[in-house]
Amino acid sequence: MITNDDGADAKGIEVLTRLMTQIGDVVVVAPDGPRSAQSNALTVTQPIRFKKLNEEEEGLERYSCTGTPTDCVKLALNEILSRKPDLIVSGINHGSNSAINVIYSGTMGAVLEGCTNGILSIGFSICNHFPDADFSHLEPFILKITRTALKQGLPYGTCLNVNAPGGEISGISIARQCDGYWTKEYARRTDPVGRAYFWLTGFFENNEPEAEDTDEWALEHGSISIVPTKIDMSDYESMKPLKEWTF
Amino acid sequence: MITNDDGADAKGIEVLTRLMTQIGDVVVVAPDGPRSAQSNALTVTQPIRFKKLNEEEEGLERYSCTGTPTDCVKLALNEILSRKPDLIVSGINHGSNSAINVIYSGTMGAVLEGCTNGILSIGFSICNHFPDADFSHLEPFILKITRTALKQGLPYGTCLNVNAPGGEISGISIARQCDGYWTKEYARRTDPVGRAYFWLTGFFENNEPEAEDTDEWALEHGSISIVPTKIDMSDYESMKPLKEWTF
Repeated sequence: MITNDDGADAKGIEVLTRLMTQIGDVVVVAPDGPRSAQSNALTVTQPIRFKKLNEEEEGLERYSCTGTPTDCVKLALNEILSRKPDLIVSGINHGSNSAINVIYSGTMGAVLEGCTNGILSIGFSICNHFPDADFSHLEPFILKITRTALKQGLPYGTCLNVNAPGGEISGISIARQCDGYWTKEYARRTDPVGRAYFWLTGFFENNEPEAEDTDEWALEHGSISIVPTKIDMSDYESMKPLKEWTF
Repeated sequence: MITNDDGADAKGIEVLTRLMTQIGDVVVVAPDGPRSAQSNALTVTQPIRFKKLNEEEEGLERYSCTGTPTDCVKLALNEILSRKPDLIVSGINHGSNSAINVIYSGTMGAVLEGCTNGILSIGFSICNHFPDADFSHLEPFILKITRTALKQGLPYGTCLNVNAPGGEISGISIARQCDGYWTKEYARRTDPVGRAYFWLTGFFENNEPEAEDTDEWALEHGSISIVPTKIDMSDYESMKPLKEWTF
């Protein structure tokens, strides 16, 4: 099963779909328009719908859905697919989902949802947010990473966050989520009647630019980063000191 | 700073605001309507706005924002607050955010955002989703937990996910995020012209009902659960085996 957060007609999902048909039967269930930065958001205040996008085609069905990427996965698993898929891939996202961006990413929201359901799940993103991004250098790596993951498997509760440099690729690094945050996040504008409004923008601040084991380091040095990512967010190390708190 | 995902006029945030004014100066920046299950979603395809809700009041400012809970925190930190707050609290959410619900929760999205910015951040939720939920039994615990957290502090990158039973409270348990998933998630309806649409609903399946150290266990046994929750989702244990994969 394939989804994304840039919408069913984005170039990234078109490329990913073509690649995955080389590996197995494919069902695409993707949002009917852009849903970037939708994280694991769910549509709860209104119902959602889906519709089929293609005619009968051997090994390929394509649907669009009115919801978020996570809605797409839930709807696929509950209402569209005839069986549990062997693999969920999300992307190829136009733009990086490295470091803290994993928590905002709709691409990775879908991957975490697949993982929660015990399905091998991988998110692919490229450090190029343009609609006509060139994915050609990344294509053989996507096939290699996906085939290896299918062969090796992952423990339940763990999925993969794969990010690729926009340019030439020097290799593949297993990395951890870099620590950082966004700053100067809003562009302030004033509407014709004098009221302020704010566009999200900003700059990423890397808290550990010298650390060589992070996804940011890998990407800056031309390497694909693969971060094994957990759905269990518990901080086990903090439990012991917390148990000593007196309330 | 206080926010929530049920909206600025929900009873839960009203109670939380009253409690926090006993601890310090309070600025509320909350969504202008319900934003449940918005996770860490960000508003990127349109601008956001905020407006002041109250007149000059000693130690209390209240604003509503057109965005998600995470937008509220970002906008507060970047555009509304005159300095970095000492504490961000989110809630009290009408409904549980235990177990896997942490990844969907708008309440916890705001908390994770605060944590990313190096601010002590706590989410409060109660296992009662009714708009007129009774929070009175929970009030003294919220004050105790908040005061203790302010005194003890938390390591950077860790925040607290606090859930409370709907009824009587027997104590406080430090717990881990219970493993589980949602099933039978959609109610199918048909519109007047015969097209299907789907409402999100479903049942939570606990994968480990016998485990005594989870948030679900604590809540089922009448205890408040506190899960220390990390923004770093890296699976460090999987890194070694992944480094042995050949691509």
